[in-house]
Amino acid sequence: MIEKILSSHCGHTARANEIVVARVDYVMGQDGTAPLAINAFKDMDGKEVFDREKVAFVIDHSAPSPNEGVSALHKLMREFVKEKAFRLYDIGEGVCHQLIPESGEVGPGSLVIGADSHTCTYGALNAFSTGVGSTDLAGGLISGQMWFKVPETFKFVCNGTLPTGVFSKDLILYLIGDVTADGATYMAAEYVGEAIAALSQEARFTIANMAIEMGAKAGLMEADDKTYNWLNRFTKREFAPVVADQDAVYAKVREYDVSKLEPQVAKPHKVDNVAPVGEVAGKPIQQALLGTCTNGRLEDLRIAAGILANRKVHPEVRMIVAPASRRIFLDAMAEGIIQTLVESGAAIVTPGCGPCVGTHNGVPSDGETVISTANRNFKGRMGNSNAEIFLASPATVAASALTGKITDPREFI
Amino acid sequence: MIEKILSSHCGHTARANEIVVARVDYVMGQDGTAPLAINAFKDMDGKEVFDREKVAFVIDHSAPSPNEGVSALHKLMREFVKEKAFRLYDIGEGVCHQLIPESGEVGPGSLVIGADSHTCTYGALNAFSTGVGSTDLAGGLISGQMWFKVPETFKFVCNGTLPTGVFSKDLILYLIGDVTADGATYMAAEYVGEAIAALSQEARFTIANMAIEMGAKAGLMEADDKTYNWLNRFTKREFAPVVADQDAVYAKVREYDVSKLEPQVAKPHKVDNVAPVGEVAGKPIQQALLGTCTNGRLEDLRIAAGILANRKVHPEVRMIVAPASRRIFLDAMAEGIIQTLVESGAAIVTPGCGPCVGTHNGVPSDGETVISTANRNFKGRMGNSNAEIFLASPATVAASALTGKITDPREFI
Repeated sequence: MIEKILSSHCGHTARANEIVVARVDYVMGQDGTAPLAINAFKDMDGKEVFDREKVAFVIDHSAPSPNEGVSALHKLMREFVKEKAFRLYDIGEGVCHQLIPESGEVGPGSLVIGADSHTCTYGALNAFSTGVGSTDLAGGLISGQMWFKVPETFKFVCNGTLPTGVFSKDLILYLIGDVTADGATYMAAEYVGEAIAALSQEARFTIANMAIEMGAKAGLMEADDKTYNWLNRFTKREFAPVVADQDAVYAKVREYDVSKLEPQVAKPHKVDNVAPVGEVAGKPIQQALLGTCTNGRLEDLRIAAGILANRKVHPEVRMIVAPASRRIFLDAMAEGIIQTLVESGAAIVTPGCGPCVGTHNGVPSDGETVISTANRNFKGRMGNSNAEIFLASPATVAASALTGKITDPREFI
Repeated sequence: MIEKILSSHCGHTARANEIVVARVDYVMGQDGTAPLAINAFKDMDGKEVFDREKVAFVIDHSAPSPNEGVSALHKLMREFVKEKAFRLYDIGEGVCHQLIPESGEVGPGSLVIGADSHTCTYGALNAFSTGVGSTDLAGGLISGQMWFKVPETFKFVCNGTLPTGVFSKDLILYLIGDVTADGATYMAAEYVGEAIAALSQEARFTIANMAIEMGAKAGLMEADDKTYNWLNRFTKREFAPVVADQDAVYAKVREYDVSKLEPQVAKPHKVDNVAPVGEVAGKPIQQALLGTCTNGRLEDLRIAAGILANRKVHPEVRMIVAPASRRIFLDAMAEGIIQTLVESGAAIVTPGCGPCVGTHNGVPSDGETVISTANRNFKGRMGNSNAEIFLASPATVAASALTGKITDPREFI
């Protein structure tokens, strides 16, 4: 798949390990990376962006701004976007990795670069999307091109049916734990099999989102009716699916049977430090985070609300909910999901990255334990290096918020 | 009124300018002031709070926490509250000055101290409530008493009917502009007359809230059916009304006819720098804030939503909405108000003080202009001393958010 997408964007048949210069279909920066890219853009004597319709900046990491320093960076972004006349998603619109798919600009066969590690999310739409640094972002903004070493591919074949109470987040955590954080370094992960096909489009984003946590350059999936139905809500554009050849060459292949999988957690302070929830069940928590580009979609909020409905968050737990976009926030209100979460005791923060990146809206205190639906639990990730973070599914986070300790969600399902 | 309330709490007939030691009915601290009070409590060898049912801490100024330093203060508060076994309103519950009235603990005749300047808000419930410093808060927590110099009273007689598009916020801004920021220093402001009687209970809170902005120790109103209807939603407790005697002695009396009042704004950087909106109409704005203890109630959100419905916030304006409490947030969702605001482009932040105090959730950038429903526009108030703040009613803020410049709301009503 990755060779086909890169081939169609570099003008010749590209093969693994080759270096190619490819045309990019979309370029994205966020408020953690765009300010540096703006400076690099100027240093490179950049005049205009290569295509105003194919570029966006998103203010999501600290939105609304928590301090004067960040406000100055936001102003820099707003002025640059206004001058160059491309799209800005300002505070309240949501997380870049939800907004770019919702824009309808990305679909099967697209090639996207974004100055954020989790740009690999759009692989769930059968696209090659990947994170780049701020300087590469500047180059991409000017040229509409990017060089790549064509990745080799690591195929994950997921057979069987996920049991009740076990979700795509549990599956990707399990896979990362299995292959470790550098198990797929610079490879294109390809997720296939009946367990992937059975997932909703929303659930698939969660898996593609975390490809980077096994070191992968991309997290690709095939497009099916679910993919196109999802896309059709946001765009009338047509995208031709990219299908792996029957005789495609894979650097690695692993097969899994997911039918006995249990809910998983990633323990502090590494994403690949994965264990079944039972191993850490009972550990007291003080904060629960539902949201982020990994698990802030409507389905995630709905699953959590199903567990929290008519129950109260434990009095010693602060539950924070960050919907991944304004669209999701509105949809969740229309379904009564936000109301359920608030009635149970959750605090809703503005759609965006929320406390995931430690910039605001829920920095834990010393000695505290957080359970989170995010994708990273590195020491200090949420703004306090004396706190610890466990990663889990929305169901596990909701169940733990109720009991005040890490809890197997199957107790509530 | 103030003499009667203090008399009933100090055991003898108290007269203006006398020093009395009075029993307090309720004591409140927030996350800006409680941490210092906890230290003072320990310095005073405090053991327990005087009455666990009559004390509350509220985490509202930075909720959820924007950084590690604040998180440490929040933890200090949580541990103290747990040890002393009284009530904590944690993140997501709202602003102290909305939560204490909603608690049902405060009503006609109550005497309340709170370590926050705008504790005078509850004067709208015919109570004497006033702001104290952190050290006084500590003394109050321990003893359940406080010394006061009995204030003289400044009576504001407001006759006539407010015109369409003119609200209680406009009236209080006008009064503050008229008497200036030290026009009622250490006095009890008493707001009476048909224009006050005609206001909803919610609108009255706005006026009492800003009594401190004319220097007053309290902002008192009579209790009527609206007061009791409002209270009955939250409590079954009975409160006897406190009525001013016919022959009460006033230090000052001013009469106003409100029937020709126009929408007012307070210009930077003083609350008493008040002008009719027409004087500054057309001034470009970059941020609009709807919320705070002054104007974050359901009626305020409803008025703004009425103007914003089926319209879009100006693309160069960030509109931030902070509902004053979880209850208000839920009520506003039930009415579709939050949905309307979000559809128009507003960013909702967690119920609490939001960006009003400059701690997070919307610190403006250098050179920016904010229009806000808050009660203070001091230089740097919102976290950036190179920004300027105009204060206005929810209607004026909503209208200005639509046009991108300060706008007379009557254009949209």
